[in-house]
Amino acid sequence: MSLIESLKWRYATKKYDPSKKVSQEDIDKIVEAARLAPTSSGLQQFRVLVVSNQEIKEKLAPSSLNPEVMVDCSHVLVFAAWDSYTAERIDTIYDRITDERGLPRGRFSSYTDKIKNIYLNETPEENFVHTARQSYIAFAMAIAQAAELKIDSTPAEGFNNALVDELLDLKAIGLKSVTLLYLGYRDETDWLASMKKVRNPTDEFVIEYK
Amino acid sequence: MSLIESLKWRYATKKYDPSKKVSQEDIDKIVEAARLAPTSSGLQQFRVLVVSNQEIKEKLAPSSLNPEVMVDCSHVLVFAAWDSYTAERIDTIYDRITDERGLPRGRFSSYTDKIKNIYLNETPEENFVHTARQSYIAFAMAIAQAAELKIDSTPAEGFNNALVDELLDLKAIGLKSVTLLYLGYRDETDWLASMKKVRNPTDEFVIEYK
Repeated sequence: MSLIESLKWRYATKKYDPSKKVSQEDIDKIVEAARLAPTSSGLQQFRVLVVSNQEIKEKLAPSSLNPEVMVDCSHVLVFAAWDSYTAERIDTIYDRITDERGLPRGRFSSYTDKIKNIYLNETPEENFVHTARQSYIAFAMAIAQAAELKIDSTPAEGFNNALVDELLDLKAIGLKSVTLLYLGYRDETDWLASMKKVRNPTDEFVIEYK
Repeated sequence: MSLIESLKWRYATKKYDPSKKVSQEDIDKIVEAARLAPTSSGLQQFRVLVVSNQEIKEKLAPSSLNPEVMVDCSHVLVFAAWDSYTAERIDTIYDRITDERGLPRGRFSSYTDKIKNIYLNETPEENFVHTARQSYIAFAMAIAQAAELKIDSTPAEGFNNALVDELLDLKAIGLKSVTLLYLGYRDETDWLASMKKVRNPTDEFVIEYK
């Protein structure tokens, strides 16, 4: 299925069949698409937490605007971004990049010095605006990959970030939650399943400078 | 080509062959993937500006960290998000949604009242943090769609937003630039083309709660 066909097929599922679980093989593909997503300076400023444990899902559910979606879905992916930039975080990634490419460490130091000079002079809040944005690229790739596999999903921003961060102890690992992606298989009674997908028409969405 | 194969194939192109242009048919597909991207509350809080005019690209180039990439590529997509939420913007979308679904206008008014209550009590700067995030989802879909078509691309955040906004007169249409996506065909001498793609290993990228 092409990406466009996948995007036409998907919709933000509002009711899951709790008896149907997504296979580990499919979860691995969805996470792999997120892992391969491009990010600013290649820093991958986020992690993906994959929650299939029912007890944890039920603890997280009250944090969500749609608790029953959280409880009934098969897996919850939590996209959580770096709470701030540090020199160590940047160096760790660039040491890996040079090592894996067989280049001397420090090969990109004029570049990493430049980005450190920008990010380390910002507040953690300003840093997080940027790291969170990167996680949306991976979030989108996971949405597209789920659809390619005909797995239903619900992108969700409506949740209590502080509560999710606390329950998953994200502060201890330097992360803050950004978005959730519920995964599973739709319940056939989902009211939204049969509704027309509505988007702005192309001639309003696009402005051309030819 | 599967999404994962597409993502493995792509890289952030650093040098384009200026003699090769992307066809209108392919540009239409890339923009269509962006148009179909999901967004918070379905509001599509952004537009895509498609710049193929060489004169405009050359005017925009000094705003970019990589001016020669801008000049040599075939097309520049500018993802530009709403500068703020307004009741009118939200109502316009929901009127379209209800009209296209054959539902009475106002069918979702309890929901739109709720989101207006959130967004209209924030500053424009807070609004823009949210609208810009949405544009990243579409940005990612465009990146994936280009790769599916074997069209090279370069996601770019490193540019002078104020200058781009001014040159394209975005303020007049209530938008602010967020990201650029250069599109075209790589020059075979691009130093990055043959470099290994490096990502954090899966066991570091993913945290599982089974």
